Amino acid sequence: MITDFLETVLPQLQQKKPLVHHLTNYVTVNDCANITLAIGASPIMADEIQEVASITAQADALVLNLGTLNQRILASMLVAGQRANQFGIPIILDPVGVGISTFRQQAVQKLLAELDLAVIRGNRSEISFLAGKENSAKGVDSFDQTLDTSTMITRAQKVADKKHCVVAVTGATDIIVDEQQIVTAENGCPAMKQITGTGCMTTSLVGSFCGSQPQEIFASTLTALLAMGIAGEIGQKRTQKLGSGSLRTAIIDTINHLDTKTLQERGKFHEVTA
Amino acid sequence: MITDFLETVLPQLQQKKPLVHHLTNYVTVNDCANITLAIGASPIMADEIQEVASITAQADALVLNLGTLNQRILASMLVAGQRANQFGIPIILDPVGVGISTFRQQAVQKLLAELDLAVIRGNRSEISFLAGKENSAKGVDSFDQTLDTSTMITRAQKVADKKHCVVAVTGATDIIVDEQQIVTAENGCPAMKQITGTGCMTTSLVGSFCGSQPQEIFASTLTALLAMGIAGEIGQKRTQKLGSGSLRTAIIDTINHLDTKTLQERGKFHEVTA
Amino acid sequence: MITDFLETVLPQLQQKKPLVHHLTNYVTVNDCANITLAIGASPIMADEIQEVASITAQADALVLNLGTLNQRILASMLVAGQRANQFGIPIILDPVGVGISTFRQQAVQKLLAELDLAVIRGNRSEISFLAGKENSAKGVDSFDQTLDTSTMITRAQKVADKKHCVVAVTGATDIIVDEQQIVTAENGCPAMKQITGTGCMTTSLVGSFCGSQPQEIFASTLTALLAMGIAGEIGQKRTQKLGSGSLRTAIIDTINHLDTKTLQERGKFHEVTA
Repeated sequence: MITDFLETVLPQLQQKKPLVHHLTNYVTVNDCANITLAIGASPIMADEIQEVASITAQADALVLNLGTLNQRILASMLVAGQRANQFGIPIILDPVGVGISTFRQQAVQKLLAELDLAVIRGNRSEISFLAGKENSAKGVDSFDQTLDTSTMITRAQKVADKKHCVVAVTGATDIIVDEQQIVTAENGCPAMKQITGTGCMTTSLVGSFCGSQPQEIFASTLTALLAMGIAGEIGQKRTQKLGSGSLRTAIIDTINHLDTKTLQERGKFHEVTA
Repeated sequence: MITDFLETVLPQLQQKKPLVHHLTNYVTVNDCANITLAIGASPIMADEIQEVASITAQADALVLNLGTLNQRILASMLVAGQRANQFGIPIILDPVGVGISTFRQQAVQKLLAELDLAVIRGNRSEISFLAGKENSAKGVDSFDQTLDTSTMITRAQKVADKKHCVVAVTGATDIIVDEQQIVTAENGCPAMKQITGTGCMTTSLVGSFCGSQPQEIFASTLTALLAMGIAGEIGQKRTQKLGSGSLRTAIIDTINHLDTKTLQERGKFHEVTA
Repeated sequence: MITDFLETVLPQLQQKKPLVHHLTNYVTVNDCANITLAIGASPIMADEIQEVASITAQADALVLNLGTLNQRILASMLVAGQRANQFGIPIILDPVGVGISTFRQQAVQKLLAELDLAVIRGNRSEISFLAGKENSAKGVDSFDQTLDTSTMITRAQKVADKKHCVVAVTGATDIIVDEQQIVTAENGCPAMKQITGTGCMTTSLVGSFCGSQPQEIFASTLTALLAMGIAGEIGQKRTQKLGSGSLRTAIIDTINHLDTKTLQERGKFHEVTA
């Protein structure tokens, strides 16, 4: 089923050119816009409360990224999110660093309480925190890379069950779950952690694919994670030994030229029986 | 006349090193600063209302870019713009996505009502909107690439006549008009649309050239569009098949090493008889 | 003594992976985050007043960069800074463009009055301004590159004596002083001035090294300046003739792969007898 999906997902996206409205942080926003364009979607970044509702209404997906959240933008997120829900536009939440401050925790609680999300995409720390685990993260980087995958699956499922959405956990092994399914994916490379925004860019790709096929949220999310992981692998190979600056450029290049064959042949994932 | 101008425009700019004050969006601001430096001008980005007037007073040009506009920055734009008008400093407006929300429409109306602009630089959707046409854009991307050039010229002229300024429309064919002249330009490549901020960067170049020669707004604007188009072509050739990440870097590289000979030999433009 | 320090500084940083909290500008923030990651530290950018104190409390260093300062972020800087002082976390101030507006002057005065700083890192204009000299800068770029080094040393010492901190002045010749020591450093290349954010990135490296070894502020600051200068030299050599876009990427690449041997062999500095 996912194999069939991968056959057509890229041309469909490039045909539809979904508009992805982002309320996001100012650290990685340029990379998020560029990767959205690179895959064939159309990004719009706008956070003024007076305009977000009307922009979301024109969009195919809404990305809420908490990287440099402030009170003004949180208020705009709630307005945009309500409009998205009203119009059936999928919302993708990236709860960046949710465990590092009470402000972020309360912000996420508010977003989760007031909005129906399609996808939550985070790292192991962030999703663990949402599953009620103590935060042991340092800053916005993930901890627990050595945490066994089955424990992390349980945590992700807990969040998915509670919020009735897809939960994607990125790391050495990626995990995508919803209330029924569990898939793990294995693409990517460790050097991606040395670039800011690989998580944010993945979330923008989730927004792009979900905006293209909002009836296929699970498969769209998996595709985004595969695409990003493959781009990291190819980028790393292409820029070997050059460093994180070149890798970042090569990831965007690879997404820009990603084709169905590469996605199908290189994408490593398998369904886990619960 | 324009040919003579191209002969000296680059060394003049590099000699003067004009200071270009930007109130701009947080998506493409880094690229705008880097391209301003690359051409030989000096960027300053500052939007705090308490300081914008004194910074504009020291500047050679003022760029107002509406990409991620909010109420706070709109207020600062009005203050900076009034100071620029008072001191005879050219203002370049980039009405990013003007058609996508009432907030942006009203913001642009206010800026147009209260400020005398030197240049408006937009894509076909944005300039069409300013000419009173219905907005059919999707997000911030342009529509109507197939719109015939003569119709677009008429729209640009309508805006130029009303606002008594230069109007530059970028796209497959660039159009530069004022109340007397019409020039079209043909440099650039389609891949530039896959990079966020090629429009914003063009506007920063317009600011750089106008800041260098404020008595030659029309020719400065044309030069900026030629420079950006040429950089896209050379960048595309140099990075062939690599993708949009590399092209972005190559555009800045090319601007950084642009010389008079390349500008003269590669710049494709012609004056249109009205 | 500094020679011994250089022997171990890189592995120590990579072992500790210090968390560097930045309140910084939106122009160069992505480069600051990427260079912090590239050297092996962990960046967190956050400026919401409700969360900065708790984030600073978890951090190993605090970077305050005034590039696009506004009133909201200034208030957050004061809160974060007080928490840093309370916890003994080193604060690094980058007084970007301090001379260009009364707002920035008063902001810096407030920060200097209320906070104990570990390091001030600026260009010749900025440090001269803090030493009470008239501002003759244009925008945020430095002036007085031809100012003789001994005069600049005197100015830096004046600031260091008054504020009891390390003062680092970057330029063709870098100067690092505190109340006892004077060191000059000579790495770098002129092309670095054509990239926005080389100053900001240097400050982020100062934060990274100081966060790693807060008991060695002077040596950490020197190391950061050597690292950035060496990266500029190697980057320039590697990308010769390509331009400022490629140089920027190469600087981050070089920092990402910087090793102790390169730091020791290429770092050019000497202690000045007062």
